[in-house]
Amino acid sequence: MTTPIRKTGRVQAAPEHFLDSALVEDINRAGIDDARRGFLRRSFLAAGAAMGAGTALAQDGGAGDPNILVLPAHSRTLGKPVVTNPYGQPSQYEANLQRRESPGLTRVGAASVSFTPLQGLFGIITPSGLHFERHHQGWHDIDPTKHRFMINGLVKNPKVYTMDDLMRMPSVSRMHFIECGANTAMEWGNVAVPSVQYSHGMLSCSEFTGVPLSVLLEDCGVDKRRAKVVLAEGADGSSMTRTISLERALDDVIVAWAMNGEMLRPEHGYPLRLVVPGVQGVSWVKWLRRIEVGDQPYATKDESLHYIDALPDGTFRQYTSIQECKSVITTPSAGQRLLDTGYYNITGLAWSGRGKIKRVDVSVDGGRNWRTARLETPLLSKCLSRFNIDWDWNGAPAVLQSRAIDETGYVQPKINELRAVRGTRSIYHNNAIQSWQVAQSGEVSNVQVD
Amino acid sequence: MTTPIRKTGRVQAAPEHFLDSALVEDINRAGIDDARRGFLRRSFLAAGAAMGAGTALAQDGGAGDPNILVLPAHSRTLGKPVVTNPYGQPSQYEANLQRRESPGLTRVGAASVSFTPLQGLFGIITPSGLHFERHHQGWHDIDPTKHRFMINGLVKNPKVYTMDDLMRMPSVSRMHFIECGANTAMEWGNVAVPSVQYSHGMLSCSEFTGVPLSVLLEDCGVDKRRAKVVLAEGADGSSMTRTISLERALDDVIVAWAMNGEMLRPEHGYPLRLVVPGVQGVSWVKWLRRIEVGDQPYATKDESLHYIDALPDGTFRQYTSIQECKSVITTPSAGQRLLDTGYYNITGLAWSGRGKIKRVDVSVDGGRNWRTARLETPLLSKCLSRFNIDWDWNGAPAVLQSRAIDETGYVQPKINELRAVRGTRSIYHNNAIQSWQVAQSGEVSNVQVD
Repeated sequence: MTTPIRKTGRVQAAPEHFLDSALVEDINRAGIDDARRGFLRRSFLAAGAAMGAGTALAQDGGAGDPNILVLPAHSRTLGKPVVTNPYGQPSQYEANLQRRESPGLTRVGAASVSFTPLQGLFGIITPSGLHFERHHQGWHDIDPTKHRFMINGLVKNPKVYTMDDLMRMPSVSRMHFIECGANTAMEWGNVAVPSVQYSHGMLSCSEFTGVPLSVLLEDCGVDKRRAKVVLAEGADGSSMTRTISLERALDDVIVAWAMNGEMLRPEHGYPLRLVVPGVQGVSWVKWLRRIEVGDQPYATKDESLHYIDALPDGTFRQYTSIQECKSVITTPSAGQRLLDTGYYNITGLAWSGRGKIKRVDVSVDGGRNWRTARLETPLLSKCLSRFNIDWDWNGAPAVLQSRAIDETGYVQPKINELRAVRGTRSIYHNNAIQSWQVAQSGEVSNVQVD
Repeated sequence: MTTPIRKTGRVQAAPEHFLDSALVEDINRAGIDDARRGFLRRSFLAAGAAMGAGTALAQDGGAGDPNILVLPAHSRTLGKPVVTNPYGQPSQYEANLQRRESPGLTRVGAASVSFTPLQGLFGIITPSGLHFERHHQGWHDIDPTKHRFMINGLVKNPKVYTMDDLMRMPSVSRMHFIECGANTAMEWGNVAVPSVQYSHGMLSCSEFTGVPLSVLLEDCGVDKRRAKVVLAEGADGSSMTRTISLERALDDVIVAWAMNGEMLRPEHGYPLRLVVPGVQGVSWVKWLRRIEVGDQPYATKDESLHYIDALPDGTFRQYTSIQECKSVITTPSAGQRLLDTGYYNITGLAWSGRGKIKRVDVSVDGGRNWRTARLETPLLSKCLSRFNIDWDWNGAPAVLQSRAIDETGYVQPKINELRAVRGTRSIYHNNAIQSWQVAQSGEVSNVQVD
């Protein structure tokens, strides 16, 4: 049967394989659905579409035989040449996978958020084109040859660096997650947003390359006796300035020019952004133009008035910046629909601003029973980790949850455990367990359970 | 001096910092150059460009004062809104960083190569838009809802899978390099191609997600008593078919639908490609439509006539597929120019088809003296590893080389050591040490030294 292939490897031999009636039957039964959602649907419409291929030109020997699946056009024609796209783009069939803004979330798009479509992504790397955006006065595409970066304040030798100065210095590359401090904010008030893109999509993960801030502070002769903090300042019009402790600044902070192997994208701070592993995104100052070394927190507007935690007693907690251990199931998730019973691979993401993920447990009954999920490697510090676990859906209603534990032993809390301490008026730093309800219809929705 | 910032964090305070005459002098001295190449040039033209900014509108208090660097427009205006690009793109200043075809390398672009611009990349992840291309009959954008994947041959239950069937199965995500067996081919004949993009650019590295082939072979009931190999077949018109040993097929081979977090790009096999870690790219069959299980190698045209090694005695070595341990310095590299003496961070990539990289040594004197480079983490098996090492260039001619050693203890050979065994008529599987000559002028060129 495979002789033609043994002899020449020519594709024309392939239809012969399909003469096996069992296979043909299987092909005609096989359902068709939005491949990205990864669910199987039995559908006459779909089967019809599959048979539709049979109306194409028949190959030699196959003409008129209903049992022969005809080779599709792409198996019989010359395709497009290389460098059709000198910089490649996704398939036309993936056009619906986009960063999306939550309508009405803010007054203007220049001070808004676009969310990463976590429900359609795989592994731990976020494609740069789908990396979430959060701007305070819009984004700019800055000419790197004119950009300057200054270090001043409590240093012996204040300096101004060009991009060239920085990019010839010792560099490091590290994979880290970045999460906005306001990610999952709506859940505090029990607002069930419609999908994981809007509930958890202010989260991305990339490989960042740049020079350690510690190297630059050393180069400028930081005054370690008096210095306690640094202030990071962006070059956009938003006056984005954040205080970072000197201890952290000398630890794993990077003055980065590259993300996922190429120069930063404009909306992510091209040509220079601060990378502050484990800390909320607002401190990863974009279009970075200045680091000032000081002896006390600067109390700038974005740390004294914004990104602060409203507590039950009416006071506000300032300078909380670490993104605590958290996880979420991305498939199945709200807005999706299970189109068939049987086996599913439940998959999701876990991360901690304090180090590596040690374990992720998954429940399909609202937290009564837990099973430990498989963790993909590499398991990196302050980086997303991908988990997978098997599930055979019997068609009955279910509530899916994931619970992450990091290397410090910290366990991701339930939403009501968080509320008991922090109340319901908070906006930032919600790392609660997320619940997805699967209805008998297969519809998946966002619910909150005790 | 910083009071205004302490009070409000407003950007208007920034120009005051620049009043420090030492800084202003530094700024005016500071050279400007193509930031991507990361070298510093002293240039009146450049300094002029920098001063040009001074012609913009002056801020309050700064008008007319030549010592005040005026805030650029992007610090004084409203930027672009979020989702200006629902799928983001690189900066306009990075437009020159492209996949490029080597003119005249092949007769038609549909059976050609586009090379990855390694000289402009960072870390280990290759942006999908710059991932190299190698097509044998061009690329297609296949409708995933119509695509089918069949497993037949020596299996109990031959099956045809839809994308939905596959994507609900247990999946894994792994980071691996892919290198064409013909990468660095021209060096055999002592043809010094002009840049690392053309000498080593058939190399990329990504995170791939899919279902292990072992799971699918199990699902079909592979006959482990008789089966010795599998044949992978693509759906394009090139009849691309490659034999892979059953042992490898059951080890770490993945039937993958995703690359770097999103669905595969069309030119990389959307919606399905075989991932064969450590093995030359031709075996990573794109637009994968069939795996046939057999009891002996299939000797298809692309393994019996192509991708074979010409030996000195006129015979050809077949079925050599592992990409042996190799490395290359990407900066500085041929086609670049060192525009100043002083400190440089020499950086490059190392990889091995047999496991992890253990060590990379770097020489700046053509191999007489070697220093051990810093290796970035994570260090993954059959994945690119990024190395860095400090170099203070004194302006004298130099020959830069890197030499990788993998965890098996294998040491990357010199080109003449390879030729002693394999002659000069070979095309494939050249993993020799690469030499870059730095002239007194700073010009870097591709040379071969003993």
